[in-house]
Amino acid sequence: MTEPLFVIPLWADLTAVGLGGVQGALFASGFRGERRLDFLGVAIIGIVMGMGGGLIRDLLLNVDLATFRSNWYLITAVLAALTGMLLSNVFQRLNRLIVGLDAVVIGLFGAFGTSKALAFGLPLVPAVFVGVCAAVGGGILRDMMMGLPVAIMHVGSLYAVAAAGGCIVLAAAHALGAPLVAAAVAGVTVTTVTRLLAVIFDVSLPEQRMLHRRKVAVETTGIPIIRPSDGDERP
Amino acid sequence: MTEPLFVIPLWADLTAVGLGGVQGALFASGFRGERRLDFLGVAIIGIVMGMGGGLIRDLLLNVDLATFRSNWYLITAVLAALTGMLLSNVFQRLNRLIVGLDAVVIGLFGAFGTSKALAFGLPLVPAVFVGVCAAVGGGILRDMMMGLPVAIMHVGSLYAVAAAGGCIVLAAAHALGAPLVAAAVAGVTVTTVTRLLAVIFDVSLPEQRMLHRRKVAVETTGIPIIRPSDGDERP
Amino acid sequence: MTEPLFVIPLWADLTAVGLGGVQGALFASGFRGERRLDFLGVAIIGIVMGMGGGLIRDLLLNVDLATFRSNWYLITAVLAALTGMLLSNVFQRLNRLIVGLDAVVIGLFGAFGTSKALAFGLPLVPAVFVGVCAAVGGGILRDMMMGLPVAIMHVGSLYAVAAAGGCIVLAAAHALGAPLVAAAVAGVTVTTVTRLLAVIFDVSLPEQRMLHRRKVAVETTGIPIIRPSDGDERP
Repeated sequence: MTEPLFVIPLWADLTAVGLGGVQGALFASGFRGERRLDFLGVAIIGIVMGMGGGLIRDLLLNVDLATFRSNWYLITAVLAALTGMLLSNVFQRLNRLIVGLDAVVIGLFGAFGTSKALAFGLPLVPAVFVGVCAAVGGGILRDMMMGLPVAIMHVGSLYAVAAAGGCIVLAAAHALGAPLVAAAVAGVTVTTVTRLLAVIFDVSLPEQRMLHRRKVAVETTGIPIIRPSDGDERP
Repeated sequence: MTEPLFVIPLWADLTAVGLGGVQGALFASGFRGERRLDFLGVAIIGIVMGMGGGLIRDLLLNVDLATFRSNWYLITAVLAALTGMLLSNVFQRLNRLIVGLDAVVIGLFGAFGTSKALAFGLPLVPAVFVGVCAAVGGGILRDMMMGLPVAIMHVGSLYAVAAAGGCIVLAAAHALGAPLVAAAVAGVTVTTVTRLLAVIFDVSLPEQRMLHRRKVAVETTGIPIIRPSDGDERP
Repeated sequence: MTEPLFVIPLWADLTAVGLGGVQGALFASGFRGERRLDFLGVAIIGIVMGMGGGLIRDLLLNVDLATFRSNWYLITAVLAALTGMLLSNVFQRLNRLIVGLDAVVIGLFGAFGTSKALAFGLPLVPAVFVGVCAAVGGGILRDMMMGLPVAIMHVGSLYAVAAAGGCIVLAAAHALGAPLVAAAVAGVTVTTVTRLLAVIFDVSLPEQRMLHRRKVAVETTGIPIIRPSDGDERP
């Protein structure tokens, strides 16, 4: 086994973890009533969203967890989550910035995951799969812990598709002999641009948000809210 | 650590993965409305059902994931899921064949998991446990990702019981000095026959199906459907 | 990698696993109607609650699962769960004893997890995190498999806080040069006392129980039960 070919520098990694923490806090603040999360719950969601992708990646590769090598990952995730909780009004106004940074972060995590998998000798297809899991794993774990169906499976799939696009470009370019840095830059660019275009042209994120908001409404009141637009089965 | 004593040949492994993918697609096609799965969701369910058992087995044994050693596992699972999605009418008519093949597949996965665990030096009981997890792990992971309670815990337990029966026979025969191939054949036979008898005599599968169908009905309309038979608490 | 600095003796480990199994059975016996668990379901919950913490700990540390090294873990968990199921009336009257023993068990698991993590070279913060996961991991896994939101994220957070307190004390004392046995005793004491005080003064457990009871009521009848106290959104 050789070293990963492409390593996110610690500051970038921690930025990603911090962003995950903030997003986790904003997600968590949407819950009211019985499902309301306390301080600890928000911190857990922050840890899960900030570190879950890297954790799943390393479990799938059967290697020691990179996010446990330094104290800073957990500290960053928790502080970011608590900051996001306290300043949720501020961050909600910065939503565009967060979505933009998140698009870059997905790209970085996907590229890091794919190249780490390639470095450990995985074939092309599983390497891309590991990259996608690294990019979207935090959200999957969050939904599983919240008892929600995993969001990317239902609507808003362009999130995972954007990650997959970048990972495929990286892996293909690398297989064709391109230098890894160039391949990684291309991969990150593809993911980021795809993701941003999807958001700008309303391809998926808004639906996903509506889904969540509606779910939250149902769950927090304890009774399902019946709305005309709620499904296509009811008469 | 020695090599696994009993290895499923790649074609059999891929057949199992493909069957899992088709079953995942048929399962997914039952969801409507808000829970409807798109193309990507069906592919994910296919991957989870086709590869989840092997993944859980290898995580429990702390070894590199076998399903990541070749490109074909993921490709097979995704293609099978998409085929199952497009031809769901055809496959639903082939239900008997699929249930029959599935019974063999559970047996094979259980036998493979148990013997791999024995090869890595696990005692008898944990080895049987790993075999059962390999046989039913895909379904467990699927339910956790869908936000559903794990089906085998509620009704239809004969699914796991059939797997356990075969794994116990294999492990016991091996402990008593039987040649492994004979032990494995006996184990696979016990699991397959138990499972088929359970289906034929309506011991568990129909209840499980009803459970799912009812759940789906509740979830897809957005409002719980009240039926006289629905519980024993309501007045 | 060196050996863990602090090892729970097998009898204590099995006591913890057995207690987890009994608690799993008592938890499972609260479900009625569609969510009712059969014999196998209760056994699975027993395994998950008795062995889940150790399993998550070892997965996070990327080491072979300790609970698979002996036949007794699985046997103890299953027997305890079935005993708990059959004698649930008796055990419910022993509730105080069980809560008390559980408080010690959380402390032991947290201390074992933290010191094992430290022995494998993890920095302080991740080592504490692994300890907390070892202490509360069984409950998390149980909720994920039941399709429930993870309880410790919502109310009753003092459960995890008690675990974290003890783990922090252990790790800090060890970092400051205290002998490990003394550090471990201090850590276990902090966790146990915090947890017991929280229970005695009704800080968290009762709310958590109410949450579960209400959830169970909703889920077993198939229709949400509307109560005045149910949320703060409804008019």
